[in-house]
Amino acid sequence: MARRPVAVGELVERATGGDARAVARLISLVEDASPLLPEVSAALAPHVGHAHIVGLTGSPGVGKSTTTGAVVAALRAQGRKVGVLAVDPSSPFSGGALLGDRIRMQDHAGDPGVFIRSMATRGHLGGLAWAAPQALRVLDAAGCDVILVETVGVGQSEIEVAGLADTTVVLLAPGMGDGIQAAKAGILEIGDVYVVNKADRDGARQVRRELRGMLSLTDRPDASWKPPILLTVAYREEGVDEVVASFDAHLGHLRSGGELARRRLRRTRDEIETLATTELRTRFAAVHGGHLLDALAADVVAGKTDPFAASRRLLDSL
Amino acid sequence: MARRPVAVGELVERATGGDARAVARLISLVEDASPLLPEVSAALAPHVGHAHIVGLTGSPGVGKSTTTGAVVAALRAQGRKVGVLAVDPSSPFSGGALLGDRIRMQDHAGDPGVFIRSMATRGHLGGLAWAAPQALRVLDAAGCDVILVETVGVGQSEIEVAGLADTTVVLLAPGMGDGIQAAKAGILEIGDVYVVNKADRDGARQVRRELRGMLSLTDRPDASWKPPILLTVAYREEGVDEVVASFDAHLGHLRSGGELARRRLRRTRDEIETLATTELRTRFAAVHGGHLLDALAADVVAGKTDPFAASRRLLDSL
Repeated sequence: MARRPVAVGELVERATGGDARAVARLISLVEDASPLLPEVSAALAPHVGHAHIVGLTGSPGVGKSTTTGAVVAALRAQGRKVGVLAVDPSSPFSGGALLGDRIRMQDHAGDPGVFIRSMATRGHLGGLAWAAPQALRVLDAAGCDVILVETVGVGQSEIEVAGLADTTVVLLAPGMGDGIQAAKAGILEIGDVYVVNKADRDGARQVRRELRGMLSLTDRPDASWKPPILLTVAYREEGVDEVVASFDAHLGHLRSGGELARRRLRRTRDEIETLATTELRTRFAAVHGGHLLDALAADVVAGKTDPFAASRRLLDSL
Repeated sequence: MARRPVAVGELVERATGGDARAVARLISLVEDASPLLPEVSAALAPHVGHAHIVGLTGSPGVGKSTTTGAVVAALRAQGRKVGVLAVDPSSPFSGGALLGDRIRMQDHAGDPGVFIRSMATRGHLGGLAWAAPQALRVLDAAGCDVILVETVGVGQSEIEVAGLADTTVVLLAPGMGDGIQAAKAGILEIGDVYVVNKADRDGARQVRRELRGMLSLTDRPDASWKPPILLTVAYREEGVDEVVASFDAHLGHLRSGGELARRRLRRTRDEIETLATTELRTRFAAVHGGHLLDALAADVVAGKTDPFAASRRLLDSL
């Protein structure tokens, strides 16, 4: 059966009505960087802003997808509509999201109150910065009360997730050298909630103690919020209700101090800037049929000019 | 004693003559994003292009700085001038490079044929993309034959390092779950040389075997180069001469096929583009005294417009 051409208006209408296939189709348009995106984005605009966006991050092996699954179950038990966006920035060359560890999510596969989506962020830095916010807008417009953004927690992806979310949850587990890792990866500054998973194992309380000590020494951006450090055994769903309660507590804190609006404004500024610079890169590539940038690069390589002078000439050419 | 104002011409002249303090001063100008950089870059231009840039990456714990130290020793034994740039993209909030693991480098601290520099890449994604190439140009102009760029191998920093280097070396070690890590982090595509360090431990040959198997299944960008997988015990300097020989073999391969010029052109294009978009972000922030971007973001948050339309308006305002 041939695929029908995309009617954006109809698709957005179905998505905002909660049609899972329309939601999936719209996110695919984002992944494919479809030329229809400006139209999609305009149609979504009146429908966004309701969802509480919660970022989940942590090193491989801490039990991130198990925890996500348990959190989804707890949210569903409260009757809330949930979106899950699993972003995989660590496979820049394959172009395909790793789905193996998403199996746990299949518990929720038939539930119309849960949208689950994996998304690869392709071969370039900034991939997450560009595409993930657009996917979040789709899930938001679809009526999700909470959207969990989960990422493979390697390197700077933690920071990127924190930039996308209202509330950032950092997962740790005993036996992973977390102390040093936490200090190195900058996660002491970004977590609004810390969860030590696998709390049935030796060392969980030790991790909490160390983390508490390190947090007390950290100069955090929002000094008025003291991030809780919760213990969970996600595969038995232990402690998960407390995690969900901490989301709500943090959202309340953000609302009461005006910080929610500030975070969303900052995030939106970044989003607009990123779209604008992405568009400019496309224009750079097109200037003089793409030859100017090549010619400038050749002159720099040959030592005839320098990168700053070349950059100025590129800008002047626009 | 008050610091003299910077005389760029004199500083560059001293740096190209091999003066370590002038080199350090110029790299500090890069780190500080000094307004003198365009002038510095122009003065450096005729002196760059000689160095072979070798990126070293690998997960924490594989023995990266020990290996770097041993490689420096081997290169110095051949009479070659060496630069080391240790980039730390994992401390985005602290603004300070982690120097603890640089102690090993102090073996070379008094050697005028070695320039060693740690560099933090600050609080934003793209920090490495912007600043590291400028620091490399300084080391190149200072007459280094080989520059080792070492990074904390977390997440996308591997990919960034590969983007900076002529030759990329990926370090592994037994007992770190390297198989899965390698597949996840995209390192199968980026390594020109693979080194399994700590080869005196159990499992090193197993790591090599697994890696060989995975590489044979990987669609690599340069199919004409079969990356060697070398075994080292870096703290005893075992196998390190072979590592250095592999750099030269790879450089020869790059030269003979024209790939060296292609890589450097591509890299320089990226560098120019990154400088241009960084400059544009500065201009965005300045448009209408910085109010336009704030006003657009507020409209997007309120659902009155969408990010794509806002991005178009921002670009139109330039």
